[in-house]
Amino acid sequence: MSDYKAFRVELKDKIAHVVINRPEKLNAMNADFWTEIIDIFRWADETDEVRVVVLSGAGAHFSSGIDVAMLAQTATKFGADAARNADLMRRQILKLQASFTAVDECRKPVLAAIQGYCLGGGIDLITACDMRYATVDAKLSIREVDMGLAADVGTLQRLPRIIGDGLARELAYTGCDISGEEARSMGLVNRTYADYDALIAGVFEIARVIASKSPVAVRGSKRMLSYMRDHSIADGLDYVATWNAAMLQSADLRVAMTAFMSKQKPEFAD
Amino acid sequence: MSDYKAFRVELKDKIAHVVINRPEKLNAMNADFWTEIIDIFRWADETDEVRVVVLSGAGAHFSSGIDVAMLAQTATKFGADAARNADLMRRQILKLQASFTAVDECRKPVLAAIQGYCLGGGIDLITACDMRYATVDAKLSIREVDMGLAADVGTLQRLPRIIGDGLARELAYTGCDISGEEARSMGLVNRTYADYDALIAGVFEIARVIASKSPVAVRGSKRMLSYMRDHSIADGLDYVATWNAAMLQSADLRVAMTAFMSKQKPEFAD
Amino acid sequence: MSDYKAFRVELKDKIAHVVINRPEKLNAMNADFWTEIIDIFRWADETDEVRVVVLSGAGAHFSSGIDVAMLAQTATKFGADAARNADLMRRQILKLQASFTAVDECRKPVLAAIQGYCLGGGIDLITACDMRYATVDAKLSIREVDMGLAADVGTLQRLPRIIGDGLARELAYTGCDISGEEARSMGLVNRTYADYDALIAGVFEIARVIASKSPVAVRGSKRMLSYMRDHSIADGLDYVATWNAAMLQSADLRVAMTAFMSKQKPEFAD
Amino acid sequence: MSDYKAFRVELKDKIAHVVINRPEKLNAMNADFWTEIIDIFRWADETDEVRVVVLSGAGAHFSSGIDVAMLAQTATKFGADAARNADLMRRQILKLQASFTAVDECRKPVLAAIQGYCLGGGIDLITACDMRYATVDAKLSIREVDMGLAADVGTLQRLPRIIGDGLARELAYTGCDISGEEARSMGLVNRTYADYDALIAGVFEIARVIASKSPVAVRGSKRMLSYMRDHSIADGLDYVATWNAAMLQSADLRVAMTAFMSKQKPEFAD
Amino acid sequence: MSDYKAFRVELKDKIAHVVINRPEKLNAMNADFWTEIIDIFRWADETDEVRVVVLSGAGAHFSSGIDVAMLAQTATKFGADAARNADLMRRQILKLQASFTAVDECRKPVLAAIQGYCLGGGIDLITACDMRYATVDAKLSIREVDMGLAADVGTLQRLPRIIGDGLARELAYTGCDISGEEARSMGLVNRTYADYDALIAGVFEIARVIASKSPVAVRGSKRMLSYMRDHSIADGLDYVATWNAAMLQSADLRVAMTAFMSKQKPEFAD
Amino acid sequence: MSDYKAFRVELKDKIAHVVINRPEKLNAMNADFWTEIIDIFRWADETDEVRVVVLSGAGAHFSSGIDVAMLAQTATKFGADAARNADLMRRQILKLQASFTAVDECRKPVLAAIQGYCLGGGIDLITACDMRYATVDAKLSIREVDMGLAADVGTLQRLPRIIGDGLARELAYTGCDISGEEARSMGLVNRTYADYDALIAGVFEIARVIASKSPVAVRGSKRMLSYMRDHSIADGLDYVATWNAAMLQSADLRVAMTAFMSKQKPEFAD
Repeated sequence: MSDYKAFRVELKDKIAHVVINRPEKLNAMNADFWTEIIDIFRWADETDEVRVVVLSGAGAHFSSGIDVAMLAQTATKFGADAARNADLMRRQILKLQASFTAVDECRKPVLAAIQGYCLGGGIDLITACDMRYATVDAKLSIREVDMGLAADVGTLQRLPRIIGDGLARELAYTGCDISGEEARSMGLVNRTYADYDALIAGVFEIARVIASKSPVAVRGSKRMLSYMRDHSIADGLDYVATWNAAMLQSADLRVAMTAFMSKQKPEFAD
Repeated sequence: MSDYKAFRVELKDKIAHVVINRPEKLNAMNADFWTEIIDIFRWADETDEVRVVVLSGAGAHFSSGIDVAMLAQTATKFGADAARNADLMRRQILKLQASFTAVDECRKPVLAAIQGYCLGGGIDLITACDMRYATVDAKLSIREVDMGLAADVGTLQRLPRIIGDGLARELAYTGCDISGEEARSMGLVNRTYADYDALIAGVFEIARVIASKSPVAVRGSKRMLSYMRDHSIADGLDYVATWNAAMLQSADLRVAMTAFMSKQKPEFAD
Repeated sequence: MSDYKAFRVELKDKIAHVVINRPEKLNAMNADFWTEIIDIFRWADETDEVRVVVLSGAGAHFSSGIDVAMLAQTATKFGADAARNADLMRRQILKLQASFTAVDECRKPVLAAIQGYCLGGGIDLITACDMRYATVDAKLSIREVDMGLAADVGTLQRLPRIIGDGLARELAYTGCDISGEEARSMGLVNRTYADYDALIAGVFEIARVIASKSPVAVRGSKRMLSYMRDHSIADGLDYVATWNAAMLQSADLRVAMTAFMSKQKPEFAD
Repeated sequence: MSDYKAFRVELKDKIAHVVINRPEKLNAMNADFWTEIIDIFRWADETDEVRVVVLSGAGAHFSSGIDVAMLAQTATKFGADAARNADLMRRQILKLQASFTAVDECRKPVLAAIQGYCLGGGIDLITACDMRYATVDAKLSIREVDMGLAADVGTLQRLPRIIGDGLARELAYTGCDISGEEARSMGLVNRTYADYDALIAGVFEIARVIASKSPVAVRGSKRMLSYMRDHSIADGLDYVATWNAAMLQSADLRVAMTAFMSKQKPEFAD
Repeated sequence: MSDYKAFRVELKDKIAHVVINRPEKLNAMNADFWTEIIDIFRWADETDEVRVVVLSGAGAHFSSGIDVAMLAQTATKFGADAARNADLMRRQILKLQASFTAVDECRKPVLAAIQGYCLGGGIDLITACDMRYATVDAKLSIREVDMGLAADVGTLQRLPRIIGDGLARELAYTGCDISGEEARSMGLVNRTYADYDALIAGVFEIARVIASKSPVAVRGSKRMLSYMRDHSIADGLDYVATWNAAMLQSADLRVAMTAFMSKQKPEFAD
Repeated sequence: MSDYKAFRVELKDKIAHVVINRPEKLNAMNADFWTEIIDIFRWADETDEVRVVVLSGAGAHFSSGIDVAMLAQTATKFGADAARNADLMRRQILKLQASFTAVDECRKPVLAAIQGYCLGGGIDLITACDMRYATVDAKLSIREVDMGLAADVGTLQRLPRIIGDGLARELAYTGCDISGEEARSMGLVNRTYADYDALIAGVFEIARVIASKSPVAVRGSKRMLSYMRDHSIADGLDYVATWNAAMLQSADLRVAMTAFMSKQKPEFAD
């Protein structure tokens, strides 16, 4: 893999492991983080061998969120005209959002493995993933409200579709901490694990299952589920019919059928 | 009722009981199934006496999903031109979708009672119903991923609105089995029952309650809830005001008022 | 506060406490209720000192819903022409909806504290609030179906986004009672409390936390979350970037930053 | 062709000519009309040999709109309950709409050739076609306003997308007549012709051009343009990419390329 | 009529004539204008006798747009915090928009008669009307660009639906003047007249035609056309079916039928 | 400017002139074209000095559309599996679309000056521009239908919003040529000019007018008009209020006011 400053990336057995790698800074999201994450997920998207991605944090925590120094720096670019400052700020926010949109739009499933702190930007990041798993004692919090701002890189957009409108509001307005176990009972994370080792073992087990499936089927399913966050059921049915019109001429369908008939495990091409 | 090959249909006490009736084939969905289901739900929709529908499977299972022979047959119709094949396939998928849209658009509530296997197309079918009930040990699974394709007759469209985005993705990508009890904890089924007899008894009890209500009120509520899956809150408020503009001149309102004042049980016309 | 007939309103420590105040009528929603609630929430919206609103019911119950006398009265205005009656009815419903839209659109978070009965219009009202809290033995029910009509002042529109599609349908079609505790397990209320005193104490504690946060951040978060009920993720990201373009030039951001650096509690202007 | 009462249908040189054939009744739309039109356009949709459809009226007029006897008959089915009448009426309107939706959704382009009167339902019908052509002295009018009702089978839905919002409103509120020439200057018809013979000759000339093109390309274009009436540009770009993913493996592309290179006229399979 | 400062209002023969009445100020839109217009159009909406509204300007001009003094005054309310200023400004703009939304949402058609200048806010106003008519030498211009701001009370929202995307952009970016005649060729105004007297005579003639039609039919048509600016064709068809479910039980339908049969002019109740 | 192979780019007097520069190939769009256009419009977007862009073609023609060699090359990448080919093709189309989306999303207005041929991809390109101007004898044609495919880089998405649904369909299905003058009468181009020199002079004159306006106002107007192609009027009004909340604190507003009061020409900062 290429040499990253804020990440460590491994590819083994068709699973890409993307690790936020600034443990001494609680994996705070600095300038390197925001640019490298785009390259990494573009690579994961385009590399046929990558079937699924696991995203975790090095050290004791997943991430403490955006590096405060970055926020402070933006203010230094402000000039005298409020409108031109606003334009500058708007484009800056859109740029940060693009980093997590790269995660969201990666055609392969992304599984977040969360231990320790997952704060502020950390929540924005995990809501851009497909699924979330945590240690029982992880600490999650929409911390932006404490910085005097409304979260603007994805949490407020994606969270209500995962946990419903009522709980999302309490988390956003109060900035309160919840444990991994509370997150599970809300549906924010799918499962919890006793500790970090169990978490990583469990998430890789799920990743291995996904990696063994037809990549055509998995990517098609991801595209549909992402599409359905924003479209009507009628639109979704039409879209999947159009999509599968091409995809059902796939070799994977024949491989699956043959395996099913012969009661053997299918092997799909990348 | 008319003579169906893949179903058995009964109407008693204003409740239509629609039973998938190919127990020797685990209620797999064959060609008869896909055409008859449209006729049955059109009949349920148009027959005033039907106030509510219960949908279940004969024998030990709800349904093992689409008959694999049907899938295999489609491929035999393919010609030499990939574009014309795609067009053929697209229309074929749209046609299958129409079978479950008939369930979704039936103006009467449809309650699914699920025991044993509910796999692949079975999940597509139950997500097109209003509510779902299961035995604790039912086995549910989005099996399409194992056939090398993205589910295309409704699961990926309707499921996230029922159980949220995070859990839906895990089920779709892994094709893992969940029990009735797990399905309940996710919100996929509303209640579980110890065994099949308790399930049927429980579901019919709920059906009887619904059948005793004003049909004008129940159908209006169904229309609104279906509408809200795809429309904004402002659109929904406008639509319900327009709908009720006519419906509030209903005799049922007077019947209900009178019953309420006299503390008696109201009797509504079909 | 101004003199209301159906409400009692207090403002203390930046928290407005709005109490439905017709305990002898189980806080049924009469004509005064529907007009005064608009004035009260407009006041709460425009008064900078109000940071958060708690909504509760005086006496043993939250509310038994719309005053039946009001419904009966509408019918007396009907003339001979069904179309003109429908037009009259449609405008009447739109007017009632506007009363709860005033709650929904109040820029400050609204917390409902629910004890005893919360029936019919009571459910319409609490779904227009940001968050809901209840005593374990509260009794909640979508009662409209028993009056022969589809709920038309907000329940059917807002409820599915809070508890999902499957459970919402059962509540709407059956009109069955659920307890506070059942409501919590569905996600309809966020937390339950043993009794009324604990409920009020608990809800005010949450309100105090919210009142201590940056009002710019809290209002921005509310706007975003309300916006996301109806818009795509891409639209939401663009909107929050545009919103924050101005809002990030806020003094609150500097206050929060300074407090964060000095590890002190920030004090935000109204 | 099958034997129709309200139509005459011919297929020649890959062009289906569908003629409303009740000239003695000014081609008023009776019960036969509304059911047969569905069969005819389903046939046109499914018959590969049909590449394009021309729709015209026998005799001196295109159509005087819905048969007034049909409207009158509906009222005779009304019972005592306004709500149940409304439900009946709503379903009746949806059924009429489905007849013109069959025209709209036919995968082959439909060209309307308009002479003489085109009134009321006639306008609903031609706005469901792809393109419209008329004699200079044709008389077009949204006549529904004169029957005391808002047009409900498509005119108000489709017209503004063709001629813009301002002119559509004048036509709808006043029910005034416009000539073919005025219709052309508004963009309602694409071209005008001096008389009926010139009209038919001109429209068939355009139909022949379309029939000579790749059917894969023409149908794809129609699907896209219909889709764009209701979707965002971003959605449209995604949809066309998904559609063409399959369709660009078409033999037609190779046929066209070869013809282009050799400067010959391509011949496409149906 | 009540006593207005910025307007003169007359009601005669079921036509309300609303005249902007500050000719000495070129009918610039001052504070009185923005509040009175809401009252006037609410009155027009609720008064059954009003069947149609004509909107014109007293003196030589329609309107020179927003009173510059008003804009200047807003700036004086600004405080030190850019975020709180932005919040103030946003609410101020929403309030101005509400004034023209009252015109847009009036259930009766509104016809604008335009002579002389129609600049800036004048364009925002006329695009909120149903139809526009002008003298050949009227001068229309989107003047906001010259004040250093994007038009924010409706022009940029409503204009493209009237004249298409390409011409709207040229007018908005350049702020150039166009004559009434040029406006007509773009579809911005429906017809032009030689001078003011001909304009008023012509517009009242059209208004009289509309006033003679069934008010149930005209209002229904307006609701549908407004609805279609923002909804899909499928949504529009469903909505009109639901609307007409009630409205087709109208006395107007019988009146129209009877008149049609007896070839007499129908007389509709308000 | 940087060194481009397929373009020539000049910046003078705040106007960027982007010239497609392969006159010997009729400005056919080759691989260089598709990548360089992204860089150029990103540069135009980010360079404050660029206020407006003029896009034209070197030599006798605007552009003959996509280079056929490029299309042919794609086919060579196809493998044995139709599904994987479809995936490859879909991503390829999305990539081409991104090139013209860069034009569409450039924050500065883009004016297309069209002479000679503007075919196929040329139409896709000019519909992504803000405004279009042409010589009277230019030749425009949606040529994709002749290549056996539905246009997939923007024409079918953007054209109907410019010229309406009826004319767009005729152009798309027939692939017929229209002259500049016919394009003007349809609203596809805003104005025509006698010859190339007059065209360039005329377009630059319009560009100069736009360049003299407040850039804050022009960019805001462009954002709003682009937004309105896809959003409801209510959404648009909310968005512009949020946008202007920040932008009305602009220095440009003061500059414009002062100039207006002193009747002088304003000078705005970039």
